[in-house]
Amino acid sequence: MKVVVVGGVAAGPKTASRIVRLRPDAEVVMFEKGNSLSFAGCGLPYFVGGVVKQHTDLMMTPAGAVRNAGFFEKVKGVKVRPRCEVTTIDRAKRQVAYTELESGVTGVESYDKLVLATGGRPVRPPIPGINLTNIFTLHTIDDSRAVKAALVKTAARNVVIVGGGLIGVETAEALLGKVDQLTIVEMMPQILTMLDWEMALLAQRHMEANGVDVRLNCRVEGFIAGADGQSVAAVRTPQGELPADFVVLAVGVRPNAELAKAAGLAVGALGGIATDAHMRTNDPDIYAVGDCVESRHRITGQPCYVPLGSTANKHGRVAANNICGVADTFPGVLGSTVCKIFDFNIARTGLSTEAARAAGFDVVTCIAPGPDRPHYMPTFKSLIIKLIADRKTGRLLGAQAVGPGGADKRIDVAVTALSAGMTVDDISKLDLVYAPPYAPAMDNLITAADIIKNKIAGLAEGLTPEEVKQRMDAGANFVLLDVRTPPEVATAALPGAMQIPLGVLRERLAEVPRDKEVVCFCQVSLRGYEAARMLKNAGHPNVKILDGGIAAWPYEKA
Amino acid sequence: MKVVVVGGVAAGPKTASRIVRLRPDAEVVMFEKGNSLSFAGCGLPYFVGGVVKQHTDLMMTPAGAVRNAGFFEKVKGVKVRPRCEVTTIDRAKRQVAYTELESGVTGVESYDKLVLATGGRPVRPPIPGINLTNIFTLHTIDDSRAVKAALVKTAARNVVIVGGGLIGVETAEALLGKVDQLTIVEMMPQILTMLDWEMALLAQRHMEANGVDVRLNCRVEGFIAGADGQSVAAVRTPQGELPADFVVLAVGVRPNAELAKAAGLAVGALGGIATDAHMRTNDPDIYAVGDCVESRHRITGQPCYVPLGSTANKHGRVAANNICGVADTFPGVLGSTVCKIFDFNIARTGLSTEAARAAGFDVVTCIAPGPDRPHYMPTFKSLIIKLIADRKTGRLLGAQAVGPGGADKRIDVAVTALSAGMTVDDISKLDLVYAPPYAPAMDNLITAADIIKNKIAGLAEGLTPEEVKQRMDAGANFVLLDVRTPPEVATAALPGAMQIPLGVLRERLAEVPRDKEVVCFCQVSLRGYEAARMLKNAGHPNVKILDGGIAAWPYEKA
Repeated sequence: MKVVVVGGVAAGPKTASRIVRLRPDAEVVMFEKGNSLSFAGCGLPYFVGGVVKQHTDLMMTPAGAVRNAGFFEKVKGVKVRPRCEVTTIDRAKRQVAYTELESGVTGVESYDKLVLATGGRPVRPPIPGINLTNIFTLHTIDDSRAVKAALVKTAARNVVIVGGGLIGVETAEALLGKVDQLTIVEMMPQILTMLDWEMALLAQRHMEANGVDVRLNCRVEGFIAGADGQSVAAVRTPQGELPADFVVLAVGVRPNAELAKAAGLAVGALGGIATDAHMRTNDPDIYAVGDCVESRHRITGQPCYVPLGSTANKHGRVAANNICGVADTFPGVLGSTVCKIFDFNIARTGLSTEAARAAGFDVVTCIAPGPDRPHYMPTFKSLIIKLIADRKTGRLLGAQAVGPGGADKRIDVAVTALSAGMTVDDISKLDLVYAPPYAPAMDNLITAADIIKNKIAGLAEGLTPEEVKQRMDAGANFVLLDVRTPPEVATAALPGAMQIPLGVLRERLAEVPRDKEVVCFCQVSLRGYEAARMLKNAGHPNVKILDGGIAAWPYEKA
Repeated sequence: MKVVVVGGVAAGPKTASRIVRLRPDAEVVMFEKGNSLSFAGCGLPYFVGGVVKQHTDLMMTPAGAVRNAGFFEKVKGVKVRPRCEVTTIDRAKRQVAYTELESGVTGVESYDKLVLATGGRPVRPPIPGINLTNIFTLHTIDDSRAVKAALVKTAARNVVIVGGGLIGVETAEALLGKVDQLTIVEMMPQILTMLDWEMALLAQRHMEANGVDVRLNCRVEGFIAGADGQSVAAVRTPQGELPADFVVLAVGVRPNAELAKAAGLAVGALGGIATDAHMRTNDPDIYAVGDCVESRHRITGQPCYVPLGSTANKHGRVAANNICGVADTFPGVLGSTVCKIFDFNIARTGLSTEAARAAGFDVVTCIAPGPDRPHYMPTFKSLIIKLIADRKTGRLLGAQAVGPGGADKRIDVAVTALSAGMTVDDISKLDLVYAPPYAPAMDNLITAADIIKNKIAGLAEGLTPEEVKQRMDAGANFVLLDVRTPPEVATAALPGAMQIPLGVLRERLAEVPRDKEVVCFCQVSLRGYEAARMLKNAGHPNVKILDGGIAAWPYEKA
């Protein structure tokens, strides 16, 4: 059996190595047109930021071997053709044509099975001035070295990052403190669109508190050249001209599906190569893996494109198994992502509120802020969890976490729960590990699940921060009831709130008007919930809770 | 409805508060015989160690309110009888008799529903000298203050901890650096018996490296008084007399089930009050929650006793719901536990290898060491994961993690997977969050699941460190093949190993004898696995892998 693998960065090498391990008789040839084999692309922002010292660190095995062509041949038994581009696929003859990029020499290589791992590429939108120098993307090792060089060369005072998605915010973290003025320009009304917008706003506030200028609803109109007429000097936007010693473009990644398309292979709705669960294309002898492929969402069954090294590795293993006769399937993704922005950990999985509604679910959500360890442990950090669930069945649909606390742990549990189709009731009874250095006795995720259960049971009715803000802005005649203690109120408050600490609320119930909507809150809205129960139990007809309390309030505080 | 709750530390207050929230018409009376209401018992070692500064911190809400009788009445609407012991239950009359401990006044209180939350108590085995002073347990706030006082008073030079379970090792962490000589005396052949023994040995080695003297197979024979004839001065063991300025007993906790038993309520095989999944005893008007109850294991269905604050909170909520007419069930526990020992995080869930075999499973295990973030991130820490699975179905049965890396996250994912009955194949395809600050592209748990899959598929055959050590000790005629590089071998090696780096193994295959069992390893046995595949593919008939490589080797290294 002869297998040709096109692409040598992540999914390609994974597939190739696994095939050789399974089938020693297989001849595996791997083509890579770029300069670097098998490098950790996800590590590029950390090399730019100086966390990773050498770019070669991103190309080494844990044992310190550089993953070059010799490594693949000697250790993995995979033949490599570096700097060699596959230009066409002849499916009838089962062969690919290639060009050696250094010499221009062309040739053909036959295959029994073909694996496409052609990756993705950063989008470069056709904006006027896009071809000026010093407008970088951050996709290859060469890119990252160019950004580092620009930092030194320009003594960069002003840097503009176009795009407030994952790469954009990771790049902002990498550059902060190395430049005078860092601006993120985002054309959408929020950064990090995989988050619900109030969660994204909390992340944005944290970036702003760290000195990043975040511009929303701001579409780049053009890049303006400096005195040399060649390199960028400013970015033109509806919000004015932003001076820029250099620009990082981070407006998304698109699958490299051209080679497949030209060969008549099916391409999906999002432009990625279409495969079945075996990672096989519509040609039974051709597989596709990694960032060139679009995946299926495990909840909606719809195509989705979330290029990640973690998924690439899973794809590679599944494809290799099937090629070697071991039936294996890839079940799809949940759109799980995580990123670090300064002191915040931001993670999410599953459907957002909007996506869940669009998929036809009757959605119930909660916002649960709290310490990620018992509050008496000085090591605790705060974390805000939002859960999205189906009101009818209680099934979890999505989870998001933002804050200095352990977001990745809670979202990984949510990933597992989503994969199993668990309900919030199932989650609330998980025997998660507990000791004070690790979690509160009721883990943040369990508390969040309990809040959703209370809402479904009709014990608690929540308003999102946005809904309360709308009432405020409209001058609605409602009571916003703050049940915190006076010292807490003194640190931050919401405008126009009535203040009755929970400890005296039982005695002062008469002060709360019965003819108005009452919205209770506290720091995290747990005492707000107790207050709402007290009021309801005392016969108040219209009592609600501000989801997440003042801790998750993303607007101005008094 | 009138509800009487017996016990005011954890499960009791939880049940009481939830009942009042659900049923404002309910009258709830809570009895507590001890000095403190609603304190965080799990925090006691951290108060002793100085991480938590004030013992009152363990008695406060996150908002800083002390949970005393006034707090429960004003805020929660629960009437409290502090320092008041319930002495008998008259089930026919539905009333309890009590004694006020300060005044000696007795009385009765009637109930419609009764909740027993009588907790557990530390075992004090009947060893000669057990009643000497300065032999402490660590169960109440008073206990922890006594230990702290003894530290000051004795200028403690020598301290002996009896018991190497969770409380014992947490106490060791708390006391280290505050005393001259710290000894743990454990009667079993390993500490932390919830771990497989080689995992426990790794934990023990870490304790020893931090200066703790750990004595295994060492049963305390007696406590010897000092010159005053009253306070302990030494601990007599088969391994000699150990001087002790004070002793901490940490040999387990037993449920306080006497009150229930005297009332004719059913008690389980492990001595805890028996309940159904609704947390109801065999009397339909009496519920039991928290440390006085024995739970059911979610995998085996067998009773198990794992007293934890996390479980107590869940019990309380389920009992309150059922008492208030909202059907709810507690599904049991997985024996999940976690503890911190110096720089090690130690977590486990589900069945140990031994328990899985005892339950009749055909067990397959793996040991997977690796960095908990990409190796190029300077923030990575190492972690060793052991998975236990059913060979026939691939179903996960248990998981254990030991090391400086993120053990709690991986075990919480395993908890969720176990609760859903997932297989290792399901786990290997979880869309866990991935970015370099949080996890490797293939999360440690996914790598571990893949190793089990390889073993089940017959691609890899592992030997545990114990099995290899037995061959060594028996002078067996086998080849131990180290495929690491010479610089790695120079740092630590296994005695008698043949050394051929993986990079040249393809060329030097002929040097490996074909007529002997060959056991391959490297740092973590991933390259060991590649070497084994190469040898198998080259026709070697008997090739195995040392599970976990040198990283998980718990014995002496050369």
